[in-house]
Amino acid sequence: MSSKPSIPKGTRDFSPIEMAHRNYIFDTIKKVYKKYGFQQIETPAMENLSTLVGTGGDESDKLIFKILNSGDFLAKADEKQLETRNSKLITPSIAEKALHYDLTVPFARYVVQNQNEITFPFRRFQIQPVWRADRPQKGRYREFYQCDADIIGSDSLLNEVDLIKIIDDIFTELFQGKLNYTVSVNNRKILAGIIESVGEQDKFEQVVVTIDKFDKIGLEGIIKELNEIGISKEKSLSLMDLLAVRKGSSDLFEMAFTQLAFLSQKIGNTINGQKGIDELAFVFEKLQQLGLKTANVNFDPTLARGLGYYTGTIIEVKVENFPSICGGGRYDDLTGKFGLKDVSGVGISFGADRIYDVLLNNNLYPEFKGDSTQVLFVNFGEKEQNYCLPLLFQLRDTGINAEIYPESAKMQKQMKFANNKNINYMVMVGSDEMASGKLTVKNMETGIQKSLLIDELIEEVLRG
Amino acid sequence: MSSKPSIPKGTRDFSPIEMAHRNYIFDTIKKVYKKYGFQQIETPAMENLSTLVGTGGDESDKLIFKILNSGDFLAKADEKQLETRNSKLITPSIAEKALHYDLTVPFARYVVQNQNEITFPFRRFQIQPVWRADRPQKGRYREFYQCDADIIGSDSLLNEVDLIKIIDDIFTELFQGKLNYTVSVNNRKILAGIIESVGEQDKFEQVVVTIDKFDKIGLEGIIKELNEIGISKEKSLSLMDLLAVRKGSSDLFEMAFTQLAFLSQKIGNTINGQKGIDELAFVFEKLQQLGLKTANVNFDPTLARGLGYYTGTIIEVKVENFPSICGGGRYDDLTGKFGLKDVSGVGISFGADRIYDVLLNNNLYPEFKGDSTQVLFVNFGEKEQNYCLPLLFQLRDTGINAEIYPESAKMQKQMKFANNKNINYMVMVGSDEMASGKLTVKNMETGIQKSLLIDELIEEVLRG
Repeated sequence: MSSKPSIPKGTRDFSPIEMAHRNYIFDTIKKVYKKYGFQQIETPAMENLSTLVGTGGDESDKLIFKILNSGDFLAKADEKQLETRNSKLITPSIAEKALHYDLTVPFARYVVQNQNEITFPFRRFQIQPVWRADRPQKGRYREFYQCDADIIGSDSLLNEVDLIKIIDDIFTELFQGKLNYTVSVNNRKILAGIIESVGEQDKFEQVVVTIDKFDKIGLEGIIKELNEIGISKEKSLSLMDLLAVRKGSSDLFEMAFTQLAFLSQKIGNTINGQKGIDELAFVFEKLQQLGLKTANVNFDPTLARGLGYYTGTIIEVKVENFPSICGGGRYDDLTGKFGLKDVSGVGISFGADRIYDVLLNNNLYPEFKGDSTQVLFVNFGEKEQNYCLPLLFQLRDTGINAEIYPESAKMQKQMKFANNKNINYMVMVGSDEMASGKLTVKNMETGIQKSLLIDELIEEVLRG
Repeated sequence: MSSKPSIPKGTRDFSPIEMAHRNYIFDTIKKVYKKYGFQQIETPAMENLSTLVGTGGDESDKLIFKILNSGDFLAKADEKQLETRNSKLITPSIAEKALHYDLTVPFARYVVQNQNEITFPFRRFQIQPVWRADRPQKGRYREFYQCDADIIGSDSLLNEVDLIKIIDDIFTELFQGKLNYTVSVNNRKILAGIIESVGEQDKFEQVVVTIDKFDKIGLEGIIKELNEIGISKEKSLSLMDLLAVRKGSSDLFEMAFTQLAFLSQKIGNTINGQKGIDELAFVFEKLQQLGLKTANVNFDPTLARGLGYYTGTIIEVKVENFPSICGGGRYDDLTGKFGLKDVSGVGISFGADRIYDVLLNNNLYPEFKGDSTQVLFVNFGEKEQNYCLPLLFQLRDTGINAEIYPESAKMQKQMKFANNKNINYMVMVGSDEMASGKLTVKNMETGIQKSLLIDELIEEVLRG
């Protein structure tokens, strides 16, 4: 093989500057998660296929990357199945393992497997890549990072309050107040109450899937789609009336309370409606009391976030012109599949790759001074090199990132190296410098050249 | 599925305390790598199968985890191949992607693919999991982390000096001078010269594989194995005489120089021998001049490190009773496979999982104060909770990791929660505290209880 190498479509390499940007995002998220008492765990990239399948439905199962069994996998495969040439049928017998496609299912598995060691309520965070055999397209990758935080084993709504405050903290830091973003909140029980109130609770799932498309297909599209599943235009209109936003105030909290009061009158008598309203009211009240830094938190009764496993609060964060950058919600039976019933949890997940794009497009990355090499010793030859080596290690031992160019290449080449690597200081040592002990130091940003003793250089670099 | 869930054999979950320990190792390695001017990159977990196979030989190829093509993979498979039921033959047509089994091959691929953007010499580090379909056993996993640093595009031996100084810096910090470790260094060219000097250069690879087992099978075993490949006892004995260590001094550097001088007399006339001796002498001289903190660096002419791609210096780090915790060397043609010839590189790889075990067994982890929750507000009920919430956020906004127990559970339960989570301070607020503004704060380590204003609490926690 000598043709130009490539990587699988939908995957990416990350260069040093991209890594600095990504680490900045991860570090910010990590710091805030820890501030709220979350503890990090990691689970393997591969899980047993049986752990992953059947969690998110048939469509999700198709997105799972399966790992071929090692060795002579065909010898252990079912001969009759092989005869059928049915890929789907044969898969479980030749691929027992698979790459996780989210961090939620592995977390549920972890909780059940380690339930005796875990202290509940358990606040865990997890930052790892996930893999999906999705059709790659702009902004959608086959390998991407999720940054999840979940609280499991507590149905207190204070957890929801914490999660929204976390969103506020993280985006306040990452966006520096320069970018508008909206945190939409809803509650599945309110959706259930609304659908029940028009007598269509049996079609809950189909109606939710349709409502979820409101932004894309608009009112007419919704009525058309609902008609197709046998819901009359009249019912569709009352449904949409219940979902329509009641302004009444320009304050987002006041708007939410107005809307909730309106819904309480209309669906307060349904099985779940009032419960959902009370839950959301609690969350909004607490957020109003505590205050928010930069987040625009609003009640969006049309927010559904697909079907998934959510049963209570649902949360989604958006900035203009981008798909959702963070989302989550409450689930009542995530661990049931693995034999642990009645454990409620709530969580959010930040999409690091989309946040990366948002920060890049809006020019919101800080300068990463000192992440790479700060000082380069120019290499003028053996004698000079031998003089510089102990000085180089003196710098390193004070914690300064430093290098010597490894051979006595042309000055131009060494200069280009320093420029490309964004090095802050270049140190030039010739016979004069060796005689006097005063190093010629060039600040690469300002272009200013100084004559400094090694201790003065250290001081200057550490001072920044 | 409701039986107790499990994970694939050879893989592991990492709990919060294990993560704290692992992050400590990664952070230490990262910090030192940066100090030496290395920049981080990441490559995808999955590579094209064709990128990975044929790099490390047939045995290595068997260790590669292959990823089943998505969708109806059998439809695109070769029917004739399917008929044969030959797993090996059919694999490339149903699995085009695979998980990387090291970070070196992906790095070589990255360098070739991005050669026009990279400034050489390129110092890159990479910390990622790798996957190997090995037989799992104690200390050997199917998913484990490698921490690699390589310099590519420079044949200067100063790079070797830097890598050994990095080893010294990292283990000085991790072992805190409390654990003895040995950095063995050799040069492939010396091995070649030694083997050539007994006229067996045609059997270089077989002889190297045998010599590599010296620690396991001893002199007699070596002679027996060499005899099996047609090398006389006489030649074997001269070979082993050349490889035997000449003490002459208790100083490791002096020992190395004695040994190199001896070898220079014996193999100085071989094609590669003297070149290898000169290279190693340069590295040892520089290390002697610069000094080492805690590393015992010795010249081990029997060190071979398998076959691999090494062509010059080879390095291996050991502590007693453990397999190698770090290793590496110089390679002259890693990128050749991908069409970029004559690019020399040198690198090392730290085995994070083994270092983890070494630190654990020797009780060398520092205490991780403040990594988890520092302050817990006890929840005595709604009124108290409402009083505490703004205080909680005041703590968090100063960067303190803090929580409130999310419901008013029994005191004993909340106490147990604080103990299990290793929380430093518990804050108790009842009617007295709400009236006076003085919070009852219990230091969980000392058991001492104090009455503090919120600002005093913040000061106390920040002071540690």
